[in-house]
Amino acid sequence: MTDVLDALLGARAYDLEQPRYAGAPTFPAHEPGVLLHLHRRHEHGLGEPRTSASALLVMAEHSGTHLDALCHQAEDGRLYGGIEVDARVQTPAGFTVLGAETIGPLIARGVLLDVAATLGADRLPDGYAVSACELEAAAEGVELRPGDVVLVRLGSGALWADRPAYEAAGGIQGEASRWLAERRPLAVGADNLTWDVPGAVDEEVGSSLPGHVLLIVRAGIHIIESLYLEALAADGVREFAFVCLPLKLRGGTGSPVRPIALV
Amino acid sequence: MTDVLDALLGARAYDLEQPRYAGAPTFPAHEPGVLLHLHRRHEHGLGEPRTSASALLVMAEHSGTHLDALCHQAEDGRLYGGIEVDARVQTPAGFTVLGAETIGPLIARGVLLDVAATLGADRLPDGYAVSACELEAAAEGVELRPGDVVLVRLGSGALWADRPAYEAAGGIQGEASRWLAERRPLAVGADNLTWDVPGAVDEEVGSSLPGHVLLIVRAGIHIIESLYLEALAADGVREFAFVCLPLKLRGGTGSPVRPIALV
Amino acid sequence: MTDVLDALLGARAYDLEQPRYAGAPTFPAHEPGVLLHLHRRHEHGLGEPRTSASALLVMAEHSGTHLDALCHQAEDGRLYGGIEVDARVQTPAGFTVLGAETIGPLIARGVLLDVAATLGADRLPDGYAVSACELEAAAEGVELRPGDVVLVRLGSGALWADRPAYEAAGGIQGEASRWLAERRPLAVGADNLTWDVPGAVDEEVGSSLPGHVLLIVRAGIHIIESLYLEALAADGVREFAFVCLPLKLRGGTGSPVRPIALV
Amino acid sequence: MTDVLDALLGARAYDLEQPRYAGAPTFPAHEPGVLLHLHRRHEHGLGEPRTSASALLVMAEHSGTHLDALCHQAEDGRLYGGIEVDARVQTPAGFTVLGAETIGPLIARGVLLDVAATLGADRLPDGYAVSACELEAAAEGVELRPGDVVLVRLGSGALWADRPAYEAAGGIQGEASRWLAERRPLAVGADNLTWDVPGAVDEEVGSSLPGHVLLIVRAGIHIIESLYLEALAADGVREFAFVCLPLKLRGGTGSPVRPIALV
Repeated sequence: MTDVLDALLGARAYDLEQPRYAGAPTFPAHEPGVLLHLHRRHEHGLGEPRTSASALLVMAEHSGTHLDALCHQAEDGRLYGGIEVDARVQTPAGFTVLGAETIGPLIARGVLLDVAATLGADRLPDGYAVSACELEAAAEGVELRPGDVVLVRLGSGALWADRPAYEAAGGIQGEASRWLAERRPLAVGADNLTWDVPGAVDEEVGSSLPGHVLLIVRAGIHIIESLYLEALAADGVREFAFVCLPLKLRGGTGSPVRPIALV
Repeated sequence: MTDVLDALLGARAYDLEQPRYAGAPTFPAHEPGVLLHLHRRHEHGLGEPRTSASALLVMAEHSGTHLDALCHQAEDGRLYGGIEVDARVQTPAGFTVLGAETIGPLIARGVLLDVAATLGADRLPDGYAVSACELEAAAEGVELRPGDVVLVRLGSGALWADRPAYEAAGGIQGEASRWLAERRPLAVGADNLTWDVPGAVDEEVGSSLPGHVLLIVRAGIHIIESLYLEALAADGVREFAFVCLPLKLRGGTGSPVRPIALV
Repeated sequence: MTDVLDALLGARAYDLEQPRYAGAPTFPAHEPGVLLHLHRRHEHGLGEPRTSASALLVMAEHSGTHLDALCHQAEDGRLYGGIEVDARVQTPAGFTVLGAETIGPLIARGVLLDVAATLGADRLPDGYAVSACELEAAAEGVELRPGDVVLVRLGSGALWADRPAYEAAGGIQGEASRWLAERRPLAVGADNLTWDVPGAVDEEVGSSLPGHVLLIVRAGIHIIESLYLEALAADGVREFAFVCLPLKLRGGTGSPVRPIALV
Repeated sequence: MTDVLDALLGARAYDLEQPRYAGAPTFPAHEPGVLLHLHRRHEHGLGEPRTSASALLVMAEHSGTHLDALCHQAEDGRLYGGIEVDARVQTPAGFTVLGAETIGPLIARGVLLDVAATLGADRLPDGYAVSACELEAAAEGVELRPGDVVLVRLGSGALWADRPAYEAAGGIQGEASRWLAERRPLAVGADNLTWDVPGAVDEEVGSSLPGHVLLIVRAGIHIIESLYLEALAADGVREFAFVCLPLKLRGGTGSPVRPIALV
């Protein structure tokens, strides 16, 4: 106990979550993002000095910084592990297998592949498609080990408050996701809405968002979207302890999360 | 980095979150708890092998295992720090001060006060009101330090799937909250819906749920409700590293969370 | 114009809608019924004398008094008219055919079949299954014509405020729905949650809620549930003008409605 | 009975509701308008030939074509009739007075004031502020009587599918609302989002949206927004029977509606 507590208290924590509010960048399929409507309020006249306020959240699982559960994607009607999607697996209240509640706390070695910095840019141009070679270049000098969480920085994080600008970011090419999947990470993540380049179809996979097939469906690797990686990058942090605690939403296809990096 | 990563990878993690699903125990003010409605589904005929599924969450901030932000409670119209609640502070979209987004990652020493075990019970009787003396007895041999997260176990955790049974649990008396507040923890938590004994009014505070005034409003101490403490207790863990990462819900009065204890 | 206006202004209107509020009787598949959360409030300090208040509704289409659209039910994967349900027809945002927005205003002759009164009861016993003979007896002396709206009274309407009592009501047998469908009404309705007797399977249809197949899928007849028929019955009204104006919810499988009867 | 039924069956009905779908024109305060998420679907494998589909609605009371309840607006902290807004009147679940459930079916004489046609335009220019004189000119030859429903046409109705264009419409000046209020209608309505000209402050009222004060708060007259008046206007209908059946949402500040005009 003493060791882990001392280590934690002595570490610096980087907050990798973007703030959550109505109108924040959101992939069209995940509208309305998050709505927070305060309904109970602090107000006089309720009979005692104490008052309570609280809100209702209407929120897509995949709003803001979030992690994809393995049931989120299928290929030819099958989930990771070859599980066929039928009415026993997929229900109105979510999935009976591979749902968000089956994901343990993610505690792993984290590695930042700062592609923007590798290419000498503050951030990659709009729509830029990151290649496997560029990931490899960004990983130079840092070993990628099975079970790692690999975070790829495009440099979009500072644009969160400017929705159209944020949504113009590119993403990771199919071949780059393939290269990463071969390294067998626990999870990958990036500072864009969809990991993949929106709209781009990979020839071998035959689908849009090919990384979602290559990583989630074929390899059982979680994807984390809309990470905030600017502070990590500014400090030149390339290796860290990564902690991410997805909510155990029974049957859920993902969870909003607040990951941290500790060094 | 190496130190904190090695320490984390070498630690055992206890998951302190209850599972989230429609119909789980919920305080009446926080209905409907959580609803997860799958709307996008894996289905044939959309033109490519890849398919996506996702759900909409309709969720009270204070559903399931959750942490109270400081704006959640007021006394005589004032929040923690004496901030007067007016229309600039309290808005339809939440609070402009002391909202959930202002809470940093909680990384702290954790202490379990297992009151049930101290009293020789698997769990405390329905409606049981824990006193300051009982907290003190449960803390015997463990120092409580400023900045700790102090978790109080009534033993209700195993009843989560039996909603009426879970909701029959008692809570912490006002004087016990007062005793705890004096120890200046960062946060406190328990394995019941409301920390306090539902319905009980404290004479000095003059309000129901007095711990919410004593801890949140007067002392700036967060409360975490509906924790799962059974595994910690079964292993006799009394000190641990505590990590809790509330979502940065702008203006929110709380956040669903998945805290962990590491030893 | 003058005729219809004079006739309307001279008519007595019976309100056939039950009140809508959280916790009102709701079929389990249609939880949470309706939630109305006031978030914008009248409050001082917003800079002008005028203030606004408004709420968010989280509502099942089939909550409270409501009308079923034809896309609500299918038999062997086909909707009314033999339309096969595939991904072009059934989408995450609702149906591209036979949705609520395709329903015109319902303006028709209405007929009340007061089965409870016919059987000499204030209301039918819990779980009572109304037969074709009983409908026929209740219709004695009133012609049923194609295009009518036929409302069947079990007598449950007065129980709305007592949820378990209301939900204990029975419904219409399959053979009775068959008898009604042959009379080719525009719509039918009753004062219970589900029209059919919950749980009862019809032998010929081979399904639960057989009336939903016989009326909606096979005959294109709308069903209206949870009507309030007590005032009509108390006044002995058996024929009336019926007006029901479903919301044009694009792709919706039904709509909450407030039907009226005019005499 | 025969009279009203015959008259209704012999009348032509004009549908005055705009279609409801995500992304339709919505005043910013009433986001997200309406979301319809299909969660239960027709799918094989549930054990019987019959299948059901249904959706959850997340909907502002004031989305699409809707009617304002009298509790929707206040002036200096008071509702219509001088009712002071306090915590007994205004609650998290809505209002205990003047809520939508207190509104009877609206059955009245309707009058169309086609301001666009009077000014010789298909529709009024963006941002156009309709004066009392223009209403008076549009009413030439048609008597306005107490208890009427008076609908004002700007000509925006055909723009519903083009959100920015629809939202650019102007509205009714304060003095024009004052002129109308003096005629003591039951309700008024228009084919724009807010009745009033967005942003314009009336000197006497001292508030934005002055018509909301003059009509709702001071005179108890309902306002109906986002009506579809194109077909009425195309046929030159100026007088009609008006029927509008707001949902009895307990405590609600308004209701989505589908009004009709009958001639």
